[in-house]
Amino acid sequence: MSILSDAVRKTRATLADGRDLFYFDDNAQYVSGERTRRLDDPRPLSDRYAPVLDENGVEHPVTGPTMRLDVLTGEWIPHAAHRMNRTFLPPADANPLAPAKPGAAYSDGEIPDEDYDVVVFENRFPSLMRVPGVDDIETTFEDVDFWRVRPAAGRCEVICFSPDDQKSLREVSPQRMRTIIEAWADRTEELSALDGIEQVFCFENRGQEIGVTLHHPHGQIYAYPYLTPRTAQMLVQARKHREATGRNLLRDVLDAELRSGRRIVFESEHWVGYVPMAARWPVEIHLAPRRDVPDLVALNEDERADLATAYLEILNRVERFFPPQENGELTKTPYIAAWHQAPVGEGREDLRLHLQLFSFLRSPGKLKYLAGSESGMGAWISDTTPEKIADRLNEVAQ
Amino acid sequence: MSILSDAVRKTRATLADGRDLFYFDDNAQYVSGERTRRLDDPRPLSDRYAPVLDENGVEHPVTGPTMRLDVLTGEWIPHAAHRMNRTFLPPADANPLAPAKPGAAYSDGEIPDEDYDVVVFENRFPSLMRVPGVDDIETTFEDVDFWRVRPAAGRCEVICFSPDDQKSLREVSPQRMRTIIEAWADRTEELSALDGIEQVFCFENRGQEIGVTLHHPHGQIYAYPYLTPRTAQMLVQARKHREATGRNLLRDVLDAELRSGRRIVFESEHWVGYVPMAARWPVEIHLAPRRDVPDLVALNEDERADLATAYLEILNRVERFFPPQENGELTKTPYIAAWHQAPVGEGREDLRLHLQLFSFLRSPGKLKYLAGSESGMGAWISDTTPEKIADRLNEVAQ
Repeated sequence: MSILSDAVRKTRATLADGRDLFYFDDNAQYVSGERTRRLDDPRPLSDRYAPVLDENGVEHPVTGPTMRLDVLTGEWIPHAAHRMNRTFLPPADANPLAPAKPGAAYSDGEIPDEDYDVVVFENRFPSLMRVPGVDDIETTFEDVDFWRVRPAAGRCEVICFSPDDQKSLREVSPQRMRTIIEAWADRTEELSALDGIEQVFCFENRGQEIGVTLHHPHGQIYAYPYLTPRTAQMLVQARKHREATGRNLLRDVLDAELRSGRRIVFESEHWVGYVPMAARWPVEIHLAPRRDVPDLVALNEDERADLATAYLEILNRVERFFPPQENGELTKTPYIAAWHQAPVGEGREDLRLHLQLFSFLRSPGKLKYLAGSESGMGAWISDTTPEKIADRLNEVAQ
Repeated sequence: MSILSDAVRKTRATLADGRDLFYFDDNAQYVSGERTRRLDDPRPLSDRYAPVLDENGVEHPVTGPTMRLDVLTGEWIPHAAHRMNRTFLPPADANPLAPAKPGAAYSDGEIPDEDYDVVVFENRFPSLMRVPGVDDIETTFEDVDFWRVRPAAGRCEVICFSPDDQKSLREVSPQRMRTIIEAWADRTEELSALDGIEQVFCFENRGQEIGVTLHHPHGQIYAYPYLTPRTAQMLVQARKHREATGRNLLRDVLDAELRSGRRIVFESEHWVGYVPMAARWPVEIHLAPRRDVPDLVALNEDERADLATAYLEILNRVERFFPPQENGELTKTPYIAAWHQAPVGEGREDLRLHLQLFSFLRSPGKLKYLAGSESGMGAWISDTTPEKIADRLNEVAQ
């Protein structure tokens, strides 16, 4: 049984190099792919898994990215230096996330169809990729038994929020936002079922201040073949809390925030937004469902519909957080929107779905840098207080 | 008995608001402070610990910065929003790290003396500060027993590497570098002895790309009243390794790198520089002593002298890492130089002194951003390999 809402139609296509692409349409006028029948990508891309020829004409099998265990921290570090098959690159001025131009022999970009509502496809140059036939086994490195290496056998997907490259996510309609939520849930469900995947992460990087060069509104979905450091850390804390109290930590945090009320910035029937009591970023909001659910897949219809409105409201508050520009336009607040979902396997019962939305911006033109204390020691210093952040987010409610 | 080398003279002074300042001189011509006799700071700064008047004329005691426990991660987050006594700020175009102008009634900046070799003073607006009379005790926050708050009762110091604001650290003489090492060791020893300090961190943030607005060559010294997250993480790994093997993890890592040789970039009598096998930054070097020592204090004379040369060599390699600018000048590589020292108390035997020097720069003008995966999940993705970094660092050896 599909978890997709009846209002959303999913159509699968295959790109020329073998990558998957999925249209998620809510528009009654058409179903992407079915209308144009150009479901498959006619570009001259070579199979991403095909052997690569070196300069001497010798064939080398594609092995995919690998990752090494940083023994000082216990963290896996994928090294994605060898990105393969860079044989087809769109022109520098092209937007690879735009729909194909009508009548063109093939798309300049990644989307073979001439229109779409929401589309998801595998990243062409992924830092995590499973190559068929490459065993996902951990081995020693340079014969040192505490140095470990493994294929970075995960998956990286891109999600386009709108065919319109001038829109920000906060400007899409609630119906379209709902479709995006369906797409996130669908991808979470499918990716969670893949061999070796331990965690699915839906996120958006927004703003050139954090290195985003493509202005087309889009996000990313990473399926990690390992537990990420932050999730591992939350699980340690959650287990300690369960041992001490028998309760779920994230549930207790939400209840404590609701009882206090001091940092609550949003409440609806199914969702609560708050600035966490020990917020570390200059702007930071957590958005959590009232009901205990592990991930987006587990949200019911009502919760999804309510989330569409809640999400847009939060994004619009973040956009109004800083004073407008001199020309009267809103300051485009750079942000990272990160969906924390329970891992697929062990620890699943101890996490609880929540969105962490945060910004590096301290004031227009002034960023929080992660310098010596943060990057060297992992020791955060905040220049504001959670209460000030909450007050401002409430002030800009409309 | 002082740990200071005979070649370095330390002179203590007090700034007008009560802060400590220490000159470290190696120059035979003068001893800062003694020559001019202006040891104390004549500026009209009010006592940093004096009560503050609010707009209604009511006195409030200074309580200092506080920190809250982030229960989701187990990390302390100092919130330094209330920086006190901002009654005296130097003009925007002044350099607060320059020596006082000869004959001026008082300094525009922080240094009361008219010259210095190396100088260290307490940061005027610190994120960590112990206020006399404020008890360093942990209490609950908003009556929730898992929400904890404490004074951020540490100390933040600034170290000026040279009186010349046009110099970079890599351009100082080996003798001056030696004096800086003496100053780091002296401050580590004194700060480690303060009540409640668990760890001392000497570091340099270099480059406007990481938010440094003051070009005068300087670093910082933080004394944390808690174990920093990275050190805590290294201790977990080091203890696991000791339980499994009976040996010190960092020692074994150094030995494994020496046996491999593939990522060694520097060797001298007492020091070894290598790119760690799971490097996460676009440029990353670890510099470790051959002898097991917990911190800079424990280095002997020969190791300090050798370190002065080694440190400058590493900095110069990092400056040559990227191609020169079009005008032929070296690309100023932004970097963070972070001294990992053993904590003061528990776990001291499991850590081992090493410098971690790293850069966010991927290529001139192109930074590695810590976006969704890194900042949201703590999951690092590297775009290069440790071997490529090591090859380049060896290529630019002179």
